[in-house]
Amino acid sequence: MKIAIINGPNLNLLGQRQPEVYGNEGFEGYFNFLQKAYSNVELEYFQSNIEGELVDAVQNFAKSCARIVLNAAAYTHTSIALADAVAAVKVSVIEVHISNVHAREAFRHHSYISPYAAGVIAGFGLDGYRLAIEGLLKKN
Amino acid sequence: MKIAIINGPNLNLLGQRQPEVYGNEGFEGYFNFLQKAYSNVELEYFQSNIEGELVDAVQNFAKSCARIVLNAAAYTHTSIALADAVAAVKVSVIEVHISNVHAREAFRHHSYISPYAAGVIAGFGLDGYRLAIEGLLKKN
Amino acid sequence: MKIAIINGPNLNLLGQRQPEVYGNEGFEGYFNFLQKAYSNVELEYFQSNIEGELVDAVQNFAKSCARIVLNAAAYTHTSIALADAVAAVKVSVIEVHISNVHAREAFRHHSYISPYAAGVIAGFGLDGYRLAIEGLLKKN
Amino acid sequence: MKIAIINGPNLNLLGQRQPEVYGNEGFEGYFNFLQKAYSNVELEYFQSNIEGELVDAVQNFAKSCARIVLNAAAYTHTSIALADAVAAVKVSVIEVHISNVHAREAFRHHSYISPYAAGVIAGFGLDGYRLAIEGLLKKN
Amino acid sequence: MKIAIINGPNLNLLGQRQPEVYGNEGFEGYFNFLQKAYSNVELEYFQSNIEGELVDAVQNFAKSCARIVLNAAAYTHTSIALADAVAAVKVSVIEVHISNVHAREAFRHHSYISPYAAGVIAGFGLDGYRLAIEGLLKKN
Amino acid sequence: MKIAIINGPNLNLLGQRQPEVYGNEGFEGYFNFLQKAYSNVELEYFQSNIEGELVDAVQNFAKSCARIVLNAAAYTHTSIALADAVAAVKVSVIEVHISNVHAREAFRHHSYISPYAAGVIAGFGLDGYRLAIEGLLKKN
Amino acid sequence: MKIAIINGPNLNLLGQRQPEVYGNEGFEGYFNFLQKAYSNVELEYFQSNIEGELVDAVQNFAKSCARIVLNAAAYTHTSIALADAVAAVKVSVIEVHISNVHAREAFRHHSYISPYAAGVIAGFGLDGYRLAIEGLLKKN
Amino acid sequence: MKIAIINGPNLNLLGQRQPEVYGNEGFEGYFNFLQKAYSNVELEYFQSNIEGELVDAVQNFAKSCARIVLNAAAYTHTSIALADAVAAVKVSVIEVHISNVHAREAFRHHSYISPYAAGVIAGFGLDGYRLAIEGLLKKN
Amino acid sequence: MKIAIINGPNLNLLGQRQPEVYGNEGFEGYFNFLQKAYSNVELEYFQSNIEGELVDAVQNFAKSCARIVLNAAAYTHTSIALADAVAAVKVSVIEVHISNVHAREAFRHHSYISPYAAGVIAGFGLDGYRLAIEGLLKKN
Amino acid sequence: MKIAIINGPNLNLLGQRQPEVYGNEGFEGYFNFLQKAYSNVELEYFQSNIEGELVDAVQNFAKSCARIVLNAAAYTHTSIALADAVAAVKVSVIEVHISNVHAREAFRHHSYISPYAAGVIAGFGLDGYRLAIEGLLKKN
Amino acid sequence: MKIAIINGPNLNLLGQRQPEVYGNEGFEGYFNFLQKAYSNVELEYFQSNIEGELVDAVQNFAKSCARIVLNAAAYTHTSIALADAVAAVKVSVIEVHISNVHAREAFRHHSYISPYAAGVIAGFGLDGYRLAIEGLLKKN
Amino acid sequence: MKIAIINGPNLNLLGQRQPEVYGNEGFEGYFNFLQKAYSNVELEYFQSNIEGELVDAVQNFAKSCARIVLNAAAYTHTSIALADAVAAVKVSVIEVHISNVHAREAFRHHSYISPYAAGVIAGFGLDGYRLAIEGLLKKN
Repeated sequence: MKIAIINGPNLNLLGQRQPEVYGNEGFEGYFNFLQKAYSNVELEYFQSNIEGELVDAVQNFAKSCARIVLNAAAYTHTSIALADAVAAVKVSVIEVHISNVHAREAFRHHSYISPYAAGVIAGFGLDGYRLAIEGLLKKN
Repeated sequence: MKIAIINGPNLNLLGQRQPEVYGNEGFEGYFNFLQKAYSNVELEYFQSNIEGELVDAVQNFAKSCARIVLNAAAYTHTSIALADAVAAVKVSVIEVHISNVHAREAFRHHSYISPYAAGVIAGFGLDGYRLAIEGLLKKN
Repeated sequence: MKIAIINGPNLNLLGQRQPEVYGNEGFEGYFNFLQKAYSNVELEYFQSNIEGELVDAVQNFAKSCARIVLNAAAYTHTSIALADAVAAVKVSVIEVHISNVHAREAFRHHSYISPYAAGVIAGFGLDGYRLAIEGLLKKN
Repeated sequence: MKIAIINGPNLNLLGQRQPEVYGNEGFEGYFNFLQKAYSNVELEYFQSNIEGELVDAVQNFAKSCARIVLNAAAYTHTSIALADAVAAVKVSVIEVHISNVHAREAFRHHSYISPYAAGVIAGFGLDGYRLAIEGLLKKN
Repeated sequence: MKIAIINGPNLNLLGQRQPEVYGNEGFEGYFNFLQKAYSNVELEYFQSNIEGELVDAVQNFAKSCARIVLNAAAYTHTSIALADAVAAVKVSVIEVHISNVHAREAFRHHSYISPYAAGVIAGFGLDGYRLAIEGLLKKN
Repeated sequence: MKIAIINGPNLNLLGQRQPEVYGNEGFEGYFNFLQKAYSNVELEYFQSNIEGELVDAVQNFAKSCARIVLNAAAYTHTSIALADAVAAVKVSVIEVHISNVHAREAFRHHSYISPYAAGVIAGFGLDGYRLAIEGLLKKN
Repeated sequence: MKIAIINGPNLNLLGQRQPEVYGNEGFEGYFNFLQKAYSNVELEYFQSNIEGELVDAVQNFAKSCARIVLNAAAYTHTSIALADAVAAVKVSVIEVHISNVHAREAFRHHSYISPYAAGVIAGFGLDGYRLAIEGLLKKN
Repeated sequence: MKIAIINGPNLNLLGQRQPEVYGNEGFEGYFNFLQKAYSNVELEYFQSNIEGELVDAVQNFAKSCARIVLNAAAYTHTSIALADAVAAVKVSVIEVHISNVHAREAFRHHSYISPYAAGVIAGFGLDGYRLAIEGLLKKN
Repeated sequence: MKIAIINGPNLNLLGQRQPEVYGNEGFEGYFNFLQKAYSNVELEYFQSNIEGELVDAVQNFAKSCARIVLNAAAYTHTSIALADAVAAVKVSVIEVHISNVHAREAFRHHSYISPYAAGVIAGFGLDGYRLAIEGLLKKN
Repeated sequence: MKIAIINGPNLNLLGQRQPEVYGNEGFEGYFNFLQKAYSNVELEYFQSNIEGELVDAVQNFAKSCARIVLNAAAYTHTSIALADAVAAVKVSVIEVHISNVHAREAFRHHSYISPYAAGVIAGFGLDGYRLAIEGLLKKN
Repeated sequence: MKIAIINGPNLNLLGQRQPEVYGNEGFEGYFNFLQKAYSNVELEYFQSNIEGELVDAVQNFAKSCARIVLNAAAYTHTSIALADAVAAVKVSVIEVHISNVHAREAFRHHSYISPYAAGVIAGFGLDGYRLAIEGLLKKN
Repeated sequence: MKIAIINGPNLNLLGQRQPEVYGNEGFEGYFNFLQKAYSNVELEYFQSNIEGELVDAVQNFAKSCARIVLNAAAYTHTSIALADAVAAVKVSVIEVHISNVHAREAFRHHSYISPYAAGVIAGFGLDGYRLAIEGLLKKN
C-alpha cells in the first residue's frame, strides 16, 4: 500500500524552531524512522508553504496513493480550497496536528478540513503521524 | 502500566443501536479484544450516563492508573465539571470520539475537555481507543 | 399500550411551589387522574433531578413502553446527553412543558431535545401531559 | 363556544403539495372532520397568503370567537405585526405547526408569536389542530 | 440559626490539588474552623460531583435550614437545573467562588445562579465562605 | 492599617433616591457606622461622578492606603481607564456592588474591573462594604 | 401645504385596546383635532394592516402631498419594502412612534425606516403626530 | 413554452425613479422588448407591492407556466413565505436582481429565496431578465 | 415652568464646525431665540465635554427644573452613568439629537439613555430642541 | 473583443469528479464549444489552484482583455487578495459559480469578490459562463 | 511649526509603574529629549485622566497647533467623544500606542479614534512619539 | 545592518493604480530613495502575490537580515500562515500599511500578523516604510 504524507506551511522549520519543544530533528529524520517502522508500506512525503501546491498535492497523491495523511498547519483554519480538494478525492485523508490545537488560540479551534477527513488526530507530537498510519492500515 | 477507559452517556447502547453503523458487538466485546491485544497493559473500564459519576471516575482512576482514555460523548460539549476534573488530575488523558464529530451538528464541534487533554482522536470508530493506547504508550 | 411519563429536575416540587400558579396538587395526584382518564393505557411515571438517571430512564422505558412523554425541565436547554438518548431510541417521544417557555428567559427558548421529538407541546399547564397522550394515541 | 382556525401562507397548498407527506386531502376536508368531531363547538376557518389579512383576521375573529387556533406558517418567524395582533386581542390564541419546526432550518426555530400565545403545539401533523381545540376547551 | 454549605464538583479535591495555591487543608478542616468561629450557628455541609444531587441538596436544606451558602463550581456556568432550584426555594442563597472567576476563562464569567442569588462573593479564597455567613447573619 | 472607600457615579444620591429600597440614610451616615465598627482601621472616603477623578483617586489612595474598596457603579461596565488604574496599583482592590448586578440588565453583567480585583462582592446592600473590609483584613 | 399621515398594523385598534393607556378615543378623533389645530394645512389619513398597501400609500401620497408622517408600527422593524419606498420618494418622511420603542423589547429597537427618514419622534403618545407636523412645517 | 416574470415591491417605480440610473423607460417597455426578442416564448408579467400577492402569483403561475423569473426586491431579504412558495412549486425559478445587491447594505446580502432558486443573476441591470430567460431555455 | 437644556461633548463647537451644515450661529444664539419664543418658560442652559459633569447637571437641574432636554451627543452611546442619572431623577427627560443618528455609523444607533427618556427626537436639526419643549409642555 | 475566463482551485477536476453531476467533459471541451459559439469574440482561458497566480492572472488579463469572467471557486469565500485585484483593474469582471452556492454550506454564502464584480451568476452549471459572456457583450 | 502631544489616562504613571518595562524615566524626561531632538519644532504637552479634558485639549490645541500626537490610552477603546473631537478638528492627528495593543486583550484591538486619525503607530515604546513627529513633518 | 522589505499582493501595481492617490512612481523608485536615505543600511526588497512565497520570504530573510518590514496587504487579514512565519522567526518584524486600514472596510480592521509584530504603522503612505526603518534602527 502507498500512503502520502503532506505537510503545510512553516512545517519545514521543524527541528530548527523551538528545539526545546520539537527536538533537534527535522521532519525528514522522522520520515526515515517511519519508513523503517512501516517497511511494508510505501511512504511519500511533500511539504509546501503554498496553499495551491498543497491542493495540487492532494489531487495528485490521490491518483497514486491509497491514503493520505495531511497536516495543513495554518491552512487548516483558512483554506476552503484545501478542504474542497480533500472532499473531491476518493481516498481517505487523515488530518494530523502535532500540537493540541484546541489548547491554543481560538482561531485554531476551527478546521475547514475536518468535516471531510476520515479521522482527526491532535496533540501527540510527531507520533501523531504514526498513529495516523496505524489507523489508516485498519481503515477499509 | 495501568490504563483506564471511561465511556460517557449512551455509549452503553453500542452494538444495539444502529448495528449497520457500529456492528453487533457491544463495547465489552471490543474491550476484551483490547485486553488481549495489549496483554502487557492492565486495562480498566467504566461507563456511566451520569456526569458526576464520570467526574468521580476521572478523579479515582487518576489515583490507580497511569493514563486515562476518555470518551465523554455528549458531556464533551456541555460539561465544564468533567473538564475541570481532567485539568485537576496529573495523569495524561486522551479524548476519543468514535465518529468524526466535526462532520456532525455544530454543537458537537466544541469540546470543553480538549484544552486539557494530552491528545484528541476522532473518526476512527472503535479503533480510536486502540490508537489512544498506542499513543499513550509512547507518551512520557 | 404502555406509555411512560418522565419528569426532570425540580418537577418533584409541583404542588408545593407557587400553589397559586400550579395548584395544591403534586404530580402524583394528576397522574392518578390520567390513569383513570386513560384506563385502556398502561401509564408509568418516573422523576429525577439527575440528568444521567433521566438518560437511563429514556433508554429503559424505550424497551418496555411504546411511547414516552418527556418533560426534561431545565435539562431541555442544557442536555445533549438526554437529546442523544431520545435520538437513539426507536419509540416516539413527545416533549412537554407546563409553562410557555417561549415567554420566559431567552435561555429557555432553545431545546436540544426538540429536533428529535415526535412532537412538542408547551403552555397548557398540566393538561399538556393529557394532550401528549391524546396525540400519541393518534400517532402511528 | 366559537373557535376560529386561521392558516397562513402556502397552507392553501395542503393536499396538493408533497402528498406522500401530507396525504391527498386539503385542509377543507380535515376541517369537515373537525366540525363533525366537535359538533358542540362552532368552528370558523380562514386562510390567506397576505400577512395583513391575517392581522385583520386575528382582530376580527377576536370579536366573534372565544378562542383562536393560529398556524401562521412562514409569518411565524418574520411577522411582528401578527404577534402584536395576538398580543392585542383578549382571547386565547394557540400556535400550531404541522411539522416539527425545531427539526428544520434554524430560521424556523424562532417564533415572534409564541411569547403571546396561550400554548404551542408542533409536530403532530394535522392532528395538532385537534389537540389545540382539546386544549382550548380545558383552558379557562 | 441553621446554615447549610453546599459544594459542587471537584471541590472534594481541595487540599490535595495544587497545595501551593489552596494549602494542604481539605474543606473539612476549614469547616471545623467555621463551626468553632460561629458556635451560635448550626452549620451543615454537603459536597457532590453530581448535578442532580446538588439540586436535591438545595431542595432539602431549604426545608431544614434558614440560609444556604452555595459554591456550585463548574455547574455555576452550565446548570439551569441548579439555578431553578435556587429560584424555587424560599431561603436566601449566597453564591461563593474561591477564586476570582472573572480573571479566568470567558466561560467562567457567566453564572446561571447569580440572578437568583441573594448575594455573590468571589476571589477571597476559603475566607469567602466566612464572609457569606457574615453577610447572611445580617440579611433579613 | 488605612483603607480607602471609593464610590462612583450617582452613588451621591444614596438616601435620597428610592428610600424604600435604600433607606433614608446617605452613604456618609453609613461611613460613620463603619468608622466606629472598625476603630482600629483608618478609613478614607471619596465619591465622584467623573470617571477620570476616580482614576486619580485609585492612583492617589494607592500611595497612602494599604487597601481600596471600590464601587465604580456604572463605570464598572464602561471604564477601561478605571480598570487600568486598578491593574496599575500594587494595593489590593475589592469591587463592591450594593445591588445584585447579575439580576439586572445584561449590560450590568460585565465588569472591566473584576479581572484585576482581588475580590468581588455583590448583592448585600450597604453591608457589602463591611464584608469587603472584613475580607481585606484577612487578605495578605 | 398637504401632509399625509400613514398608520401601520394594529393602529386601527387605538381607543379600543388598553383604554387606560391610550384613552377611549380612536385615531379618527385625534385626527379631527389635528385638522382643526392646523387649519392652514390639508391633512390626509390612511391606515392599513397590509405591508404592501403601506408601500402603495407612501408611493401615492408622495405624488399628492408635500410631506408624510409615517407610523409603520410593527413593520418598522421588519419591512425593507417600506424603507425602500421611503427612500425612493422625494418628499420628507417623519417616523413617529406613540410609545418609547427603546424601552420595550430588543426587536423594537431597530428600524429599517429611520436611515431614510427626515426625522424620528418616539414616546410622546399621540402628541408625537403634532410634533411631527410642527417639525415638518419648519423643514425646507 | 410559457415563462412568467414576477416583480416585487417598488419595482413599479422603474423609469420614474432615478432616471439617470435606470433610464426613462418603465418595466412595461422593457417587457415589450423581451416579448419581441423571444417571440417563440409566451411571456407573462405581474407586479405587486404586497408580499402575499407575490406568494399567490408564484403558486398560480406555477400551474400555467413552465418557468418563473422572480425579482422579489426587498422581500428577497425578509420573506420566508415567498421562499416557501418557491420551494413548494415544481417549476424552476430564477432569482434576478437589477443592481449588484452584494455591493449595497449588508441586509441586502442575504436572500431567503436563493437556496430554493434554480439560479441567481445580479448586477446586469434590466439585461438580467434576458439572461434569466436565456438560462431557463437551456435548463431541463 | 423651568426647563433645562443640557448639551454634551463637542456641541460647544456648533457654529464653528461645518458652518455649511450647521450655519454660523452657535448654540447660544439659538438659545436666545428659544428664550424669546417661549417667554412663559424659564430656560436654563449647560454644556460640558466631561461625562461626570453632565451627570452632575442632570442631578442638579432635576432639583430646580420641572423638565430636562438632554443632547448627550457621543455619551449617548457610551455612558451608563448618564443613563443611570436620567433613571434616578424624577423629572421627565427628553433625548434630542440634531442629526439623524440612525443614518450614521452603527455605533450611533444604540442609546443607553433612550429606555429612561420620556421621549426621543432626532434629525430635525436645532429645531429638535423646540419640538422637545413643545412636547414637554404637553406632557403631564 | 477579447474576453478572459479564469477558473480557481479544484476546477481542473471538472469532468473527472462526480461525472453524474458535471458530465464527463472537462472544462477544455466546454471552452471549445464557447469558442465556436462566440466566434467573433477572442476567448482566453486560465486555471490555477494557487491564489496568487489568480491574482496575477486578473492583473495580466486586465491589460490584454476587455472583460473577465472569474470563477474563483473556494477562494471566492476567503481571498481578499483576489477581491483587491478585481477592484484594482479597470475592466468589468463577472463572477460565475457553477452550482448554486446559496443552497450549500453557510461559508459559501459570502463572497469577497461580489462587491467589486460587475455582475454575479450562480446555479446554471457550465451554462453560467455562456450567460456571463452574453451579459458582458451587452455591458458598456 | 507647533505640535501638541496629548496623553490619556494612567500615562502619568510612566516611570513609576513597571520600571523594568518602561524604564525609570517619566514622560516629562522623554519630552525634554524630544524638545532637544526637534529644536525647530515647538512642542506642547498635556496629560489628563479625564475624558472630557482630553476632548477640550484636542479642541484647544487644534486652534494653536498645526498637528497633534494623541495617545488616548484606555479611552482609545471607549470614547466616541474623543473620536468626535478628532473628527471635528481640521489638523492632522496621529494616534500613538506605546505597547503593541494588538498583542493584548481583545478589548484593546478596537479603536474609535483610528478611522479619523491621519496615521497610527503602535508597539515602538516611547520611540513611537518620535516616529509620529517624523511622520507629521512629512505630512502635508 | 541588513533590513528586508517584503510587499504582499497587488502592491506591484503601485504607481499604475490610482496615480492621483499614490503618485506616478512605483515602489522600485521609492525603494531607491530609501537606499540613498539610509546608505549605512543594506536594504533588500521582495514582492509576491502568492501567500506561500511571502511565507518563504519571511523565513529566508530572517536568516540573512537583522530586521524585516512587512506589508502583507490583503493577506494581513486572512493569512495565519504568514502570521505563523512571523511568530516563528527570531528577528523583529514591523507591520506597515500605506493607507489607514482602520478607516476602510470592517474586514481590514483585523490583522493576524499584528500580535506577533514588533510594531505597527498605518496611514502614512509610502513614508510608513521610512518610519519603520527609523523605528527598527532604535529597536534593540
